[in-house]
Amino acid sequence: MQVLDSIGYIELVETWGSDEGIIKAARMSTAKGFLGWENDARLLRYLWTHRHHTPFEMAGATFEIQAPIFVVREWHRHRTQSYNEMSGRYIQLPNLYYIPSIKRLMEGVQSQKNKQGSEAGFSAAEAKFRQSIIEEATHNARVMYEQLLHLGVSRELARLVIPVNQYTRFRASANLRNWLHFLGLRLDSRAQFEIREYAKAAEQMLTEHFTRTMNLFREEREQG
Amino acid sequence: MQVLDSIGYIELVETWGSDEGIIKAARMSTAKGFLGWENDARLLRYLWTHRHHTPFEMAGATFEIQAPIFVVREWHRHRTQSYNEMSGRYIQLPNLYYIPSIKRLMEGVQSQKNKQGSEAGFSAAEAKFRQSIIEEATHNARVMYEQLLHLGVSRELARLVIPVNQYTRFRASANLRNWLHFLGLRLDSRAQFEIREYAKAAEQMLTEHFTRTMNLFREEREQG
Amino acid sequence: MQVLDSIGYIELVETWGSDEGIIKAARMSTAKGFLGWENDARLLRYLWTHRHHTPFEMAGATFEIQAPIFVVREWHRHRTQSYNEMSGRYIQLPNLYYIPSIKRLMEGVQSQKNKQGSEAGFSAAEAKFRQSIIEEATHNARVMYEQLLHLGVSRELARLVIPVNQYTRFRASANLRNWLHFLGLRLDSRAQFEIREYAKAAEQMLTEHFTRTMNLFREEREQG
Amino acid sequence: MQVLDSIGYIELVETWGSDEGIIKAARMSTAKGFLGWENDARLLRYLWTHRHHTPFEMAGATFEIQAPIFVVREWHRHRTQSYNEMSGRYIQLPNLYYIPSIKRLMEGVQSQKNKQGSEAGFSAAEAKFRQSIIEEATHNARVMYEQLLHLGVSRELARLVIPVNQYTRFRASANLRNWLHFLGLRLDSRAQFEIREYAKAAEQMLTEHFTRTMNLFREEREQG
Repeated sequence: MQVLDSIGYIELVETWGSDEGIIKAARMSTAKGFLGWENDARLLRYLWTHRHHTPFEMAGATFEIQAPIFVVREWHRHRTQSYNEMSGRYIQLPNLYYIPSIKRLMEGVQSQKNKQGSEAGFSAAEAKFRQSIIEEATHNARVMYEQLLHLGVSRELARLVIPVNQYTRFRASANLRNWLHFLGLRLDSRAQFEIREYAKAAEQMLTEHFTRTMNLFREEREQG
Repeated sequence: MQVLDSIGYIELVETWGSDEGIIKAARMSTAKGFLGWENDARLLRYLWTHRHHTPFEMAGATFEIQAPIFVVREWHRHRTQSYNEMSGRYIQLPNLYYIPSIKRLMEGVQSQKNKQGSEAGFSAAEAKFRQSIIEEATHNARVMYEQLLHLGVSRELARLVIPVNQYTRFRASANLRNWLHFLGLRLDSRAQFEIREYAKAAEQMLTEHFTRTMNLFREEREQG
Repeated sequence: MQVLDSIGYIELVETWGSDEGIIKAARMSTAKGFLGWENDARLLRYLWTHRHHTPFEMAGATFEIQAPIFVVREWHRHRTQSYNEMSGRYIQLPNLYYIPSIKRLMEGVQSQKNKQGSEAGFSAAEAKFRQSIIEEATHNARVMYEQLLHLGVSRELARLVIPVNQYTRFRASANLRNWLHFLGLRLDSRAQFEIREYAKAAEQMLTEHFTRTMNLFREEREQG
Repeated sequence: MQVLDSIGYIELVETWGSDEGIIKAARMSTAKGFLGWENDARLLRYLWTHRHHTPFEMAGATFEIQAPIFVVREWHRHRTQSYNEMSGRYIQLPNLYYIPSIKRLMEGVQSQKNKQGSEAGFSAAEAKFRQSIIEEATHNARVMYEQLLHLGVSRELARLVIPVNQYTRFRASANLRNWLHFLGLRLDSRAQFEIREYAKAAEQMLTEHFTRTMNLFREEREQG
């Protein structure tokens, strides 16, 4: 699934467990199994709303993601996921960079009130000019990087000039409880737009496999 | 799969990932995929022997286990697994207890040299006598437990008289890296016989799904 | 601090960090330090109420606890704490058992409505009778345990007859964020009385060292 | 303590626990306390060499670190530490960048044999030229960053042009077991020079507070 532009993506590698398996795990406590959704839809809701989160650890998912370094930096703060990432020590980094769209930049004015966010405000022409600066900075950095490599500088040192809009690639694996915690934080309006786009795509893909659980998750979020 | 006696068991609920998926995750670092086992058997060995353990987090397994409380107490010290267990607060505990076999008891003399282990030594008749004491103690405790319940004492208090050879049931889920760490500790000759039996069964079931990884694990253990 | 009876206890071994240190850690994001509580009381409240929990990981505490096995079983489900516990494989277990008080037993009737809890209801005389059954069961189990040891059975097998009201001892260490999560669950009215008593004592001791944080924690709990 | 240059540093904020506390925790298993180092030096060695690592979780340390983003990216892969970091969304990033020294660059030729490392090889003049490219690239990126901010672009977007030799600042807290795992990996000769410099400084500071444990750690590393 494309994210951000024609380069960024998130793909579902695999899931395990199921809504039904979550019920089965929860029912260990009373030595009963899955009884059918007529009864157990209510149990699933009870588990989620009363924060009995351990049964949700019995399901999970692995994704492959291509995202800019500044997004990955935020992502990797989640310490309950498993990661394997492309390394600029082992290979030459691909010539792939995230340039924000005109639309994104038009909304990208620094808010004076709010530390974190950014307010709407640039015209298309203003945004275009700001975009061209980002493009030029990115291009310059890439040229310098390739020159350093050409001059025989080791990859691990040449990469020092690489900007954080460099695309990198990784796999991330976690159980469903931890994915939902991740989504809860990264779908939030206070999260930066770019990581939110990845979170939205992940939510959508998880919904196909854990429909009942994801509906409860969405319901709770909508109620704030 | 039966473990210990006709009551204890460990069943594989599900696995995810594969030996091949481990290679694919490891190859994120160099932006290559799986190249075929002629090449990648060597990479898998390199990952394992050089303790590049993160790719092994991309696979995993969930088991359902019926085991005595004293085994589960040791098991639950592993904080990287997810658990859901039967609860003596919610249901009457089943009339299922672990009584060590004559063979096990014949080897169950307290070592004087070694704090942890136990040395061989009882005759069959001696073992039989000791077994009968354990049986009697277990029986008495069960009678008292049922009497307390019969007298209207809450399950959460009646269970106080339950001995740690009481069978309980739980599901345990973890990634492969963490299962291998668990097995490394619990297959060790210093681990108590009973949990070792469960570890052996788990190892066997994992071997069917992650044959190449498990062979490397076994090889390393055999070399000490 | 005594808990439950004259045997159970929880002692604070050590704390690290402070309310002020939590502010300093949170201020890493804006490259400012601690500005004084006139300003920073508001920031601490903001962090807690908006669930910016990572700065609370910069403080922590270690406790030593003597508690019955059934309490420790619940406690050790918290996988973010570090534990070291007495082992029945290494030493003879102490002749120390938890016998619920008359008062506790008077309230210890099995609820018919509620799976988890227990309702008030026994007279003092009824409670006394039920207590005597628990005492007898405990005494019998202890006699059997000592007999097995006397007959040369290894400690690791003799302990099979030990009931879960056996006192054991352990140290538990965690950061403040994780202690507060533990307290949130174990101070809850749905938690079993016995572990709630330990949680109350821990809360009290943490309040002496992290007064401002603990006040925010209590405030939130009181508001439900 | 300065690391890398006049900008990079690592400071010890605080430690908790002690070598003696590790013994006390380990002795929970046998219900004995600390007996004095004549006896317990041997126990500490036994714990370490037999990988009984849980008692080492009863001590810990918090550091404050100023390091380039590419170092922090490697650091934050350690999921057992707690972090709070400066954020380019909240503040303008400081005009502080890591420029490798001439000495470092002289050794910074890309190895043809070894994927990861880099071989010695540039003359001082060659290194000087390569350093000037890194300086120029860094300077250009900074100019662009400030221009974007000046043009009203939000901090969270302006930072996209920031290179990974940008200095950032964070606190990291973990227990001693996890610090030793971190050091084991990051002191290794295969680790990149820059993070190794931080690891060396951390090791030195931990040695002052946990002398006996750190000596065992060093001894094991020297024996390979």
